[in-house]
Amino acid sequence: MKAAGVVVEYNPLHNGHVHHLRETRKATGADVIIAAMSGNFLQRGEPAFLGKWERAELALRSGADLVFELPYRFATAQASEFAEGAVTILSAAGCSSFCFGSEDGDILAFEQAADLIGKHRDRYESDVRRLVRTGMSYPAALSGAYSALPQPDGVPAADLTRPNNILGYHYLRASRELGTGMKAYTIGRSGSGHHDLAPDAGTGIMSATGIRRVVLSAGTMDGITGAVPPATAAALQRWREAGRPFGSWDEFWPLLRYSIIREGSGKLARIAEMSEGFENRIFGAAAEAASFPGFMERLKTKRYTWTRIQRLLTHILCGMEWEDYRSLRSPRYLRLLGMTPDGRQYLNENKKTLGLPLVTRAAASDDPMLRADIRAADIYWLGIGGRGPGSDYRTPPILIGD
Amino acid sequence: MKAAGVVVEYNPLHNGHVHHLRETRKATGADVIIAAMSGNFLQRGEPAFLGKWERAELALRSGADLVFELPYRFATAQASEFAEGAVTILSAAGCSSFCFGSEDGDILAFEQAADLIGKHRDRYESDVRRLVRTGMSYPAALSGAYSALPQPDGVPAADLTRPNNILGYHYLRASRELGTGMKAYTIGRSGSGHHDLAPDAGTGIMSATGIRRVVLSAGTMDGITGAVPPATAAALQRWREAGRPFGSWDEFWPLLRYSIIREGSGKLARIAEMSEGFENRIFGAAAEAASFPGFMERLKTKRYTWTRIQRLLTHILCGMEWEDYRSLRSPRYLRLLGMTPDGRQYLNENKKTLGLPLVTRAAASDDPMLRADIRAADIYWLGIGGRGPGSDYRTPPILIGD
Repeated sequence: MKAAGVVVEYNPLHNGHVHHLRETRKATGADVIIAAMSGNFLQRGEPAFLGKWERAELALRSGADLVFELPYRFATAQASEFAEGAVTILSAAGCSSFCFGSEDGDILAFEQAADLIGKHRDRYESDVRRLVRTGMSYPAALSGAYSALPQPDGVPAADLTRPNNILGYHYLRASRELGTGMKAYTIGRSGSGHHDLAPDAGTGIMSATGIRRVVLSAGTMDGITGAVPPATAAALQRWREAGRPFGSWDEFWPLLRYSIIREGSGKLARIAEMSEGFENRIFGAAAEAASFPGFMERLKTKRYTWTRIQRLLTHILCGMEWEDYRSLRSPRYLRLLGMTPDGRQYLNENKKTLGLPLVTRAAASDDPMLRADIRAADIYWLGIGGRGPGSDYRTPPILIGD
Repeated sequence: MKAAGVVVEYNPLHNGHVHHLRETRKATGADVIIAAMSGNFLQRGEPAFLGKWERAELALRSGADLVFELPYRFATAQASEFAEGAVTILSAAGCSSFCFGSEDGDILAFEQAADLIGKHRDRYESDVRRLVRTGMSYPAALSGAYSALPQPDGVPAADLTRPNNILGYHYLRASRELGTGMKAYTIGRSGSGHHDLAPDAGTGIMSATGIRRVVLSAGTMDGITGAVPPATAAALQRWREAGRPFGSWDEFWPLLRYSIIREGSGKLARIAEMSEGFENRIFGAAAEAASFPGFMERLKTKRYTWTRIQRLLTHILCGMEWEDYRSLRSPRYLRLLGMTPDGRQYLNENKKTLGLPLVTRAAASDDPMLRADIRAADIYWLGIGGRGPGSDYRTPPILIGD
């Protein structure tokens, strides 16, 4: 059986994601689609709108055959580490190709970008450093240094100022550097952009941000039924009926604030991604701010992007310190969140050749990377209420459609 | 002006405490009464029912002239360290005497107890160690070793199985060992015992435990008006009307549970008073228990007393680690929580001879012991709601009756 990989968050899963899964199968000719999916905290440094088990089930009902958890260490990291973690998992799971959504939608443009940066690496990296020193944020510096490179002949290089293009470039680069041999594909994102709030008139596709906003403001799912598969609307409805708040920083603000006060500036300095002196700013803001938006208002600076700050806050919330963060370099397991019958058959056929140990029962493992995943899951449930901490240890993989 | 000291928690202040303050003034002939009072967490390892500022005000309205905060480091420590901290503060504040409430009510019985243990120290200490090795709790071992000592001639030595007698003995011993020269007095506790729930028929005195229980179960203060001064009933009523829950572990359980999950067993081992291996039991119990009583049910053992476990949980909640705990040996300041005009006059007359620096504005100090006090106050307010964290820095001492 031939497998193709995708890297996803599904926050929540919508028609654009269904399209991506369908087109991935078509383009790659794969028998099974394997998803590396973030757990309960996402790359923008935010708690997921729905829990990982719910999102894994939606993935399996919408075209994926196997869902592996992208460990917390990578799911909440900057783009390059996020991509390295995800690509490592897809490769270890035996994918012969992977396919990402992008604004450009042309894989040659990404090959050009990777070649271009590879060819001018010294100049590119020194430009990045120079721009960061002027007070520019790291992503802005990457983008600025990239734009200054001489355009290649032929197909133009991908526009690395756009969010999905940036991730796509990192997947491609990680796959090359890790020597996975996976063939890369990209599908143009049709319809709404990353943060557009209104559905696209032609396709009915609405961004995940737009969907979350509609769900939070409306009492029913009527406003999103044209933009999500029925399974997503039903999962959101069940979540609400269970009395759970949808995941957001507003829900986690009391715990975040408490952990900041409890740690104090001194211990905050140990937190992963903390840069020198910022711990004092965080401590002062937590004492003063009465809400998460007010807190972020006090934290924001030109030098750090909003997502960089939120990732740091995620590490504070989840107690991820530099020491552990640095020691967890590369994925060490494939944690199975769910499968379809095809996915199960694929696993049975390939279990002896997987590149990493398969984890189906987390309770059986004592890996510190996995413990960090479990801790993040537990803390998510403490903030949301509902399942108790420790439940993640005991939850077996979902099996859909047997 | 002559000053006498008392060591108090006032959780909350009741008629027995008023009696103690009045009798202290009478017995010692002091012009001012100085109270060393615990902050928002108490020696039994519990959050205070009312905040420290409220309790300081009650003290000043009921016979005390100056209230200094017993730093968190001592207020939540075992009896001997609690006593050393409190006696150090009273002595530094210039008290020429101190007076404690006790079941025995005869200072000679305490002198006998101190002499007896002093005379047989080696035997006593080796007996304590032996009994602890048999699995007995530390307080039970102290009590067992003490009972086995030969009774002295004359006045019988104090019964050191009773809670206030134990504290009284430690005050006396600390005062001798520190060489304070303060004269010791004791007042017999009249009326209800430490945990009696009904008011004493003769005196109308009700234990603080009984008062808290009545306040929690009734919508009005009617059931306690015979047992507390009007100021206490009014303070409790104001607290309730402000929509604040009274301090208890039930209120802090969500934060405690989160901090346990966030730390994990590995980091819990760093917490002050943690004994080896107990961190695993705490972590496992926090994952399983859905309430504080259920949690304690899973933790209790023959070896550790309920209060010892609760003190440890207080240190987890407040992030007090062994490293800091061990480095904070003795009080380093007199933090003024409030004063009467007499108290102010006393301070003016004696400020140059105080044994420790006077702190009236916490924001002006960077002492790590004081930071721990502020942190505990902040965390109390995060659990209770109401004042923001950081408010303790800015709160000026209370001045009553000017």
